[in-house]
Amino acid sequence: MVDMSEPAVEEQGSLEFDVFARNCTSRATLEHVTGRWGILALAALRDGTLRFNALRRRVDGVSEKMLAQTLQALERDGFVRRDAQATIPPRVDYSLTPLGEATATRLFDLIEFVEDRMLEVTANQAAYDAKK
Amino acid sequence: MVDMSEPAVEEQGSLEFDVFARNCTSRATLEHVTGRWGILALAALRDGTLRFNALRRRVDGVSEKMLAQTLQALERDGFVRRDAQATIPPRVDYSLTPLGEATATRLFDLIEFVEDRMLEVTANQAAYDAKK
Repeated sequence: MVDMSEPAVEEQGSLEFDVFARNCTSRATLEHVTGRWGILALAALRDGTLRFNALRRRVDGVSEKMLAQTLQALERDGFVRRDAQATIPPRVDYSLTPLGEATATRLFDLIEFVEDRMLEVTANQAAYDAKK
Repeated sequence: MVDMSEPAVEEQGSLEFDVFARNCTSRATLEHVTGRWGILALAALRDGTLRFNALRRRVDGVSEKMLAQTLQALERDGFVRRDAQATIPPRVDYSLTPLGEATATRLFDLIEFVEDRMLEVTANQAAYDAKK
C-alpha cells in the first residue's frame, strides 16, 4: 500500500522541462527556434537589427505571412525584440535579445557545420540513391 | 566592357553552400536535422543504437509514418545508419554515423540550452500575453 500522507518526494529532475515529452512547453519553443523560418530569421539577426522587409529578403523564400508569424512567436518567447516607431511610413525594427543572441550563436554553429559538410552529405545521397 | 575571355575568378566562398539561398541543397539538409522529428531522433540516438519501436517510444508523439520518413531522409544524408537483420521477426537497428554524432552533439547542446532557459521563456510569454 502506498502511503499518501506525505507529499511524494520529487525525483531529481522530474520538474525539469523535457523536449522529448510531447506536451512539454519546451518542445514548442524548440520548434520556434529550429523551425524552417525561425532558425534562418534568428541567424540573420546575428548581423544586427533589421527591418521587416530587409529580413524578408535575407530569409530567401519566406512569405510575408510566415515571417510575421515566425517573428511573433520568437518575440513572445523573448528571443526577438520588436521596435515599432511612429514615423511616417511606420518603421518596424527587429533585433535579438540576449536570450536570442545566445540561441542564435548555437544555431549559427549548427548552420556552419551543416554547410561545411554538404559535400559529404551530397556524396552520401548519391550513394544511397545508387543502391535503390 | 567585361572581358569574358578568361574564366571568372570565383570570389572566395561563392561556390559554398548557403542555407539562406532558397534552392541550396544545404537548406533541405538543415531541415532534415532541425525538423520537428529529426532533431529529436538524432538527439535520442546519442544514447546508442535503438530499434525502430524503441526510438518511436522515445520520440514521444511521432507517428510510425513520420518517423520512418524522418529516418529515411537522415539515412540518405548520411546522419543515420540503418541495419536490417534477417532474423525472424526482422530486426532493424538505427544508430548515428560519425557525421550524425557530430550533428547530434550540436543539437543536444541547443536542446539543453532551450530547456535550461524555459522558466525565462515562460515568463516572457506571460508578459507578452499580458500586454495584448
